[in-house]
Amino acid sequence: MKFATLKDGTLDGCLALVSRDGQRAVRASAVAASLIDALQRWDEVHLPLCDLYESLNAGSAPGAFAFDPAACAAPLPRCPQWLDGSAFLNHGRLMEEAFNAPPIPLFDTVPVMYQGASDDFLGPHDDVPLPSEADGIDFEGEFGVVTGPVPMGVSPEAALACVRLVVQINDWSLRALGPHEMKTGFGFLQAKPSTAFAPVAVTPDELGEAWRDGRVQMRLQVQWNGERFGEPHGGEMNFHFGQLIAHAARTRRLTAGSIVGSGTVSNVSRAAGSACIAERRVIEKIDQGEIRTGFMRFGDRVRMQARFDGGADGPFGVIDQRVVAMAATAGAA
Amino acid sequence: MKFATLKDGTLDGCLALVSRDGQRAVRASAVAASLIDALQRWDEVHLPLCDLYESLNAGSAPGAFAFDPAACAAPLPRCPQWLDGSAFLNHGRLMEEAFNAPPIPLFDTVPVMYQGASDDFLGPHDDVPLPSEADGIDFEGEFGVVTGPVPMGVSPEAALACVRLVVQINDWSLRALGPHEMKTGFGFLQAKPSTAFAPVAVTPDELGEAWRDGRVQMRLQVQWNGERFGEPHGGEMNFHFGQLIAHAARTRRLTAGSIVGSGTVSNVSRAAGSACIAERRVIEKIDQGEIRTGFMRFGDRVRMQARFDGGADGPFGVIDQRVVAMAATAGAA
Repeated sequence: MKFATLKDGTLDGCLALVSRDGQRAVRASAVAASLIDALQRWDEVHLPLCDLYESLNAGSAPGAFAFDPAACAAPLPRCPQWLDGSAFLNHGRLMEEAFNAPPIPLFDTVPVMYQGASDDFLGPHDDVPLPSEADGIDFEGEFGVVTGPVPMGVSPEAALACVRLVVQINDWSLRALGPHEMKTGFGFLQAKPSTAFAPVAVTPDELGEAWRDGRVQMRLQVQWNGERFGEPHGGEMNFHFGQLIAHAARTRRLTAGSIVGSGTVSNVSRAAGSACIAERRVIEKIDQGEIRTGFMRFGDRVRMQARFDGGADGPFGVIDQRVVAMAATAGAA
Repeated sequence: MKFATLKDGTLDGCLALVSRDGQRAVRASAVAASLIDALQRWDEVHLPLCDLYESLNAGSAPGAFAFDPAACAAPLPRCPQWLDGSAFLNHGRLMEEAFNAPPIPLFDTVPVMYQGASDDFLGPHDDVPLPSEADGIDFEGEFGVVTGPVPMGVSPEAALACVRLVVQINDWSLRALGPHEMKTGFGFLQAKPSTAFAPVAVTPDELGEAWRDGRVQMRLQVQWNGERFGEPHGGEMNFHFGQLIAHAARTRRLTAGSIVGSGTVSNVSRAAGSACIAERRVIEKIDQGEIRTGFMRFGDRVRMQARFDGGADGPFGVIDQRVVAMAATAGAA
C-alpha cells in the first residue's frame, strides 16, 4: 500500500491512499483518520485499507481524485520518535574529516543515532524557514522506516519484522552548528531543524526486490537548483534497519509510528556523487585540495527522488523544497 | 492551577484539576480532554479551567473526589518535545570528572541540551523496567517547564513568557552507556530510558515567590530506599528557563506542550547532597579518594519531593518509583 497525508489544518492531517501508479488518491479517513491512527490500530485497519487500495487501483474507488503531492504534508506530520542513524559508514568517515573530529569509537560495529524533533515535520514541497545563511544550510538525503510497536530489548531480526512502512527523507542540517554540538557530547539539537519527507510512505512489499536485506536498494537522485548533485545507492548501508531499530530499542520500547532513519545515503564510489553538501565539500578538500562548494542560500531549492535500479521512478514521490529566511517577526512573538 | 492526568487507557489520559491543598481532584474533561488538548487550546480553555479550579478549592465542584497520585500518569504522558538541559554547572563539572571527559566547550555561556524520547513517559508511581543492572541505573532529580507555542528565534525574555506550567522530573539514566554515547558526539539515546514525572503540573503562580528569576527556588528532597540522599536547591541554576527555551528554539519552533528540563539539580555546597548517584560517586572519589556507592539494583526505590524554603511540601506531589527487570519475554516479541 501507498499512503499520503493531505493537509487539512489538523496536526495529523487526513489519511489518503495513493494508487500504485501514483496518479490517483482516495481519502481513507472512513477507515483511519490519520496515518498515525492507522499505525496505532494496524491489525484492525490493515485489511479494510488493503480493500480500499485494491479498489483504487482497479479504478472503482468512489471519490478518487488526481493525486497532488503539493497538497501533502509529511506522511506523518508528527510522530512519537524520530531517531536518525548514520549507517553509511563512508559518509561518517568523510564527515569526521569535514568536522576535523576524532574517530567515533566503535563506529564499525555499534550504530550511532541521534534523537530529532518529531512534532513538526515538513511536507515534500514546504518551504524551509531558517534563521541565517551563516548557519551552513545543508540537505541530507536519506531513507527511513516507520515502525509498529517495538518492545524493549528486541533482536535485530525481530526488529526488522516491526517495519510497517518505508519513507524517503530530507534531514535538514546546519553545518556551522554541528561540530560544537558534537563536542558537547549532548548531540545535535540546533544543528537539526525540522525534517522533511517525500509525500508517499509505502509498505515494504511495494518495493519488491528493492526491499532486501533490511535495506532500500534504490538510488537517491539529488538535484540542487536543478543541477545534478548525486545519486548514491541505498544498498551500501552498513547496518540494516533491523539493527538500527534494535539499537534504538535497547533500553526503551518504541511506540507505533516511530521513524528510524538511515543517515545520509553515501557510496564509496566518487562517481555516485553525494546526498549532502558537507560530504561534497570534504571530498573536494581531499581530492582537489580545497573546498569549492558553499552551502545553501535563501531561495535555493533541493529536489530528491528515489529510483529503482532499472531507472524507473521510485514510489515515494519527490521532495522539492526551497530555503527561505525565517519570518522577521518570529523572534518578537 | 494544578493539573494531573488520570490513567484511563488512552495515550494522553484524562485531565483533572487538583485542589490547592492537594487533597481533592475533579475531572476537567468537559473543558479539555487531556492536558495536551488544554495546552493546544490554552487561550480558549484557560478561563473555564480557572473557574472549575476555584469551585474545586471552594468545595463546590460537582464530582470532586479524593486525589490519588497512584492513579496518575505523568501530567503529559507524551509530549511534542522533551529537551533536557544541564543548567546546574556544578553538576556538569562534576560529571566531566566522573566520565573522565574533556571540558565541554563554552559550558559557562552556552547551554547544553539533549533531545529525549517524549512518547512514553512514566507516571510518578510507575515501576521502571530496565534490561540490566550492569547498565549503571541512576535517577536524576530535576525541575522543568511546559511551554506554549514558541516561535523560532525567540529571545530568552520572550521565551520565559511562553512558560505555561512547572513540573518535577526524574530523568532516569544509565551511566554505563552515557560516556560512549557522549564520545560519538550524537548524544544520549540508550543512556536515557523513559523519563518520569511527579503527578502535579502547576501554573507558575502556584509557586508564589518560589518562581523567581526564571528558576524554581525550592529544594528537591531525594531519598534512595528510604534514606536521605540530598536536597539541592533549584535557585543555583546557572541558566534560567527562558535561556534554555531560547536555546532550544534557535533553529526550530516548539509546539505547545513541549517540556524543557533543568538537568540534575546540584549545589556547590557538599552539605546539600546530590540528586543523582553519579554525582555522589564522583564527590566520594574527590573527597574520600574512592567511590563507595554503587548504582541502583532491581527492587530499589527512589523518592523525590520538592519543598518550599520554609519546609512546606511543594505542589508537585511525590515521585516514588521502583526499578524492576524488564519482562523476560519483551525481547522475543
